[in-house]
Amino acid sequence: MSCEVVKVVDVAAPFITELKDQISKLEVKPLLVAFLANDDPAAKKYAEWTAKTCADTGLRFELRECARTELEDKIVEANEDDKVNGIMVYYPVFGGTQDGYIQNTVSYRKDVEGLCHKYIYSMYHNIRYLDDAQTEKCILPCTPLAMVKILEHVGVYNKVLAYGNRLHGRTITIINRSEVVGRPLAALLANDGAKVYSVDVDGIMELHRGQGLKLKKHEVFETKVTLDEALKVSDVVITGVPSPNYKVDSSKLKDGVVAVNFSTAKNFNDDIKEKASIYVPSVGKVTVAMLERNLLRLHEYQTKEKL
Amino acid sequence: MSCEVVKVVDVAAPFITELKDQISKLEVKPLLVAFLANDDPAAKKYAEWTAKTCADTGLRFELRECARTELEDKIVEANEDDKVNGIMVYYPVFGGTQDGYIQNTVSYRKDVEGLCHKYIYSMYHNIRYLDDAQTEKCILPCTPLAMVKILEHVGVYNKVLAYGNRLHGRTITIINRSEVVGRPLAALLANDGAKVYSVDVDGIMELHRGQGLKLKKHEVFETKVTLDEALKVSDVVITGVPSPNYKVDSSKLKDGVVAVNFSTAKNFNDDIKEKASIYVPSVGKVTVAMLERNLLRLHEYQTKEKL
Repeated sequence: MSCEVVKVVDVAAPFITELKDQISKLEVKPLLVAFLANDDPAAKKYAEWTAKTCADTGLRFELRECARTELEDKIVEANEDDKVNGIMVYYPVFGGTQDGYIQNTVSYRKDVEGLCHKYIYSMYHNIRYLDDAQTEKCILPCTPLAMVKILEHVGVYNKVLAYGNRLHGRTITIINRSEVVGRPLAALLANDGAKVYSVDVDGIMELHRGQGLKLKKHEVFETKVTLDEALKVSDVVITGVPSPNYKVDSSKLKDGVVAVNFSTAKNFNDDIKEKASIYVPSVGKVTVAMLERNLLRLHEYQTKEKL
Repeated sequence: MSCEVVKVVDVAAPFITELKDQISKLEVKPLLVAFLANDDPAAKKYAEWTAKTCADTGLRFELRECARTELEDKIVEANEDDKVNGIMVYYPVFGGTQDGYIQNTVSYRKDVEGLCHKYIYSMYHNIRYLDDAQTEKCILPCTPLAMVKILEHVGVYNKVLAYGNRLHGRTITIINRSEVVGRPLAALLANDGAKVYSVDVDGIMELHRGQGLKLKKHEVFETKVTLDEALKVSDVVITGVPSPNYKVDSSKLKDGVVAVNFSTAKNFNDDIKEKASIYVPSVGKVTVAMLERNLLRLHEYQTKEKL
């Protein structure tokens, strides 16, 4: 079979090398504080994994466990503490819109996950810098950013095209439209020039910058295109359905498709290798590298601010 | 029966008189723009009602209907339009966390509903002014603010006490913990000194500022107190369960309780009049008056800014 199965460690490797190099030059290593305020064993495991990765690359990591009713005050404390460079939270805490409130309580100067409104708004509106002088890039949410890096690695981004337009001509289906990954990812890829079908149980949205990328940022429409029709024309299919029972039918995909799964479950069957040109079975390790990259960036902004 | 059934028009009346007086002095009447991006007939009805109330008090009201996929761009347009003084949205649009994103897209300078993070955060943290010089009060969400005005009207707020502490000694149960009404309301009343039981299907939270109001803002705890226990000791019971089948059992209430229902359904049985000292069957008209009051306040800030 000619399918290239991409090991995500290979995508993460150059970023980790660069991170280690940057960190080695810093006298005081940046500190990431992570809040665990739920009983989810998966969150705890993810926390242990983040701790290990941070130790490997030379960053300081501190897990703070607390009752969910105390979380907000603890975040405000960390916002105001100069010794803390980055803050993250293991969700869900309360679930639903109250978690959205918590996301916005993290100061944008320390928001390594890129989930506060300032960053999310900038991302949707294709605003790439925090300042007019373009000295500070906006922080992007980790998993969507990891996906961009993966799609760059596997050649879906076309470097011949101008930066910002490198997905022009690509059609991408994303099966997941959560506020944390699927919807921001769809916007990000559409802003880079792709035609995106964003799929969830409620229906399909189409996002694009119009013919010839005439728009500066994407538009979004409710489309009547079905999932089968979308899959048939998609150069890239990205899945993130958190259920072991959900599988994409490989026979419905375009021959030579790029298939990427970011769900903890496997959303593609093994026969994907007979259809895809490139298959990326998981993205987690790139996500953590992007988390660290965001931390270093915020640390840099904070250091500049103190000068 | 000695129960006083409070007509909400009587609570709203002095506010409306004051609003009309203020508006009559303005050459250009403030403009409220409301966005309707769903097919909910209840939202449409509420929009018509808001239009009528605005016309009565002398405010300009414009309903803008659009597809939900266009809503964000239309809000940004209104944010940037100097002729628009206030913006509101009929929710739900997408539902869930995506609606939280929309709420934060409305500029805080025009957010008559007080739902953006800046205002919600200030409310939870008992921060009452936007600026250190205390020239601009924060906008409070309309229904919780209406509830404060109703509780002032019926004497639950004790004017003998210092402003900010006027609920000291009161125990209040609120059955509803939505992000739009129940949870902010619980925080608001606890910040004013009450001991609050905040009830929803997931359990009961207790909010208070500690013995002798030693804290500047409320703390929150998951409590083991049951609903029956909470009702038995509550001076005020406020309900907002959007189901005609949900009824509070009057026999479980304290004799002489103050009962307030903000649900569109009736959460109290008729026998409430045999138990309560004061019964407020609905709050909608005060809510709209508060919406108009917020608009005038924002209009005043905007005018000041232009000077």
